[in-house]
Amino acid sequence: MPEISIVLVEPLYEGNVGFTARVMKNFGFTQLVLVNPCPLGDDAIMRASHARDVLENAQRMTIEEIYREFDFVIATTGEVSKSVCTPMRMPYYSPAEVREIVADIDGSIAILFGRENWGLANTELARANLICTIPTSKVYPILNLSHAVGILCYELANLPRGTYPLAGPIEMDSLYQHIETFLDKIDHPDFKRENTMLLIRRVLGRTKLTTREVSTLHGLMRRTEWHLENKE
Amino acid sequence: MPEISIVLVEPLYEGNVGFTARVMKNFGFTQLVLVNPCPLGDDAIMRASHARDVLENAQRMTIEEIYREFDFVIATTGEVSKSVCTPMRMPYYSPAEVREIVADIDGSIAILFGRENWGLANTELARANLICTIPTSKVYPILNLSHAVGILCYELANLPRGTYPLAGPIEMDSLYQHIETFLDKIDHPDFKRENTMLLIRRVLGRTKLTTREVSTLHGLMRRTEWHLENKE
Repeated sequence: MPEISIVLVEPLYEGNVGFTARVMKNFGFTQLVLVNPCPLGDDAIMRASHARDVLENAQRMTIEEIYREFDFVIATTGEVSKSVCTPMRMPYYSPAEVREIVADIDGSIAILFGRENWGLANTELARANLICTIPTSKVYPILNLSHAVGILCYELANLPRGTYPLAGPIEMDSLYQHIETFLDKIDHPDFKRENTMLLIRRVLGRTKLTTREVSTLHGLMRRTEWHLENKE
Repeated sequence: MPEISIVLVEPLYEGNVGFTARVMKNFGFTQLVLVNPCPLGDDAIMRASHARDVLENAQRMTIEEIYREFDFVIATTGEVSKSVCTPMRMPYYSPAEVREIVADIDGSIAILFGRENWGLANTELARANLICTIPTSKVYPILNLSHAVGILCYELANLPRGTYPLAGPIEMDSLYQHIETFLDKIDHPDFKRENTMLLIRRVLGRTKLTTREVSTLHGLMRRTEWHLENKE
């Protein structure tokens, strides 16, 4: 399988952390990462049941560290109403589509789940490679956290190890920095900058660039920059 | 959607019943049936959250009533080791396969989930049309009840209404009775009877017979019986 970690961002209820550990192990996942979680006590241990090891081996990381360490980051969000088609949460992919997309990745993947009451902040979502939304009923779309984790784990279980060598987070960061500089050079307006970068991150994020492709994109931008600087 | 009911058979923990109601409603299902459940109190209501209506409208039925009332009954079981290939629990289908199978049904479907500690009894399984097993890790295959329900609901959500007119439970019962009588007439040995009937129930159960097909099978048996009785 690709190395998939489940990341809970500021979970509020220890019972949900325990249930998450359990359902992860049910589908063969053992790498749990916690970002600033609630205190974990007996209730978490009880609900983890025979997945106490997953709970106890959970790593603590910051959002910054997650985007620095993982090759591919998937952020989950609740279903958004059609009227809120912001580039922050669109386009989104179903768990089955995510399975297709990540199936051939050879690299580390993090799946982010937000707080029980309001999910992930835009700042936590912005750098994700792609957004995943579990299709739910409009009448009552709010899944319990551990049920959402369970459905992702069910879909992503038993993936064969991919062979697709992803560019790492450092390479991708340097590409995005280059693009930002490039946008400066073509006088891209400041007020549009954030949304444009978000869109570029989403498009390039989900295309799963290889190291070679990243370097080709750098080359194309450098070539364009040369012509911009040397125009008569 | 086909009319799908979720049936919990003797659930032991009210929290799981509440969580079940919630995850059902998350995927658009509202018909919960309880067979001899534990007492339901505050914990069930709390975990049902905004699906309190599903919990409160839950019907109480017996296993007998379920097999009498529903056109198609799916029994869920934990994954069985390969060494226990009994006809009782084999062959089994994954939730995705079940989706394919039930997709075109026009009729009422019940999905049975057993007790948290030991699942469904053989007597409760025996008459099911088919067996569904969620593929899990061998290391820790025991899913929490509500997580198992959630995965089935996720797979079966948003099915279009089928157009396939199933023979009802009364017609199917009369077919199985005819087959039993027929087996008597051909001196089928008693000690094999139970397993043979189980196999026949499974095969005919999952083929989703129409009323017309049932009557053709009756006709074929009657014709054979006539020849058995009128042989020289």
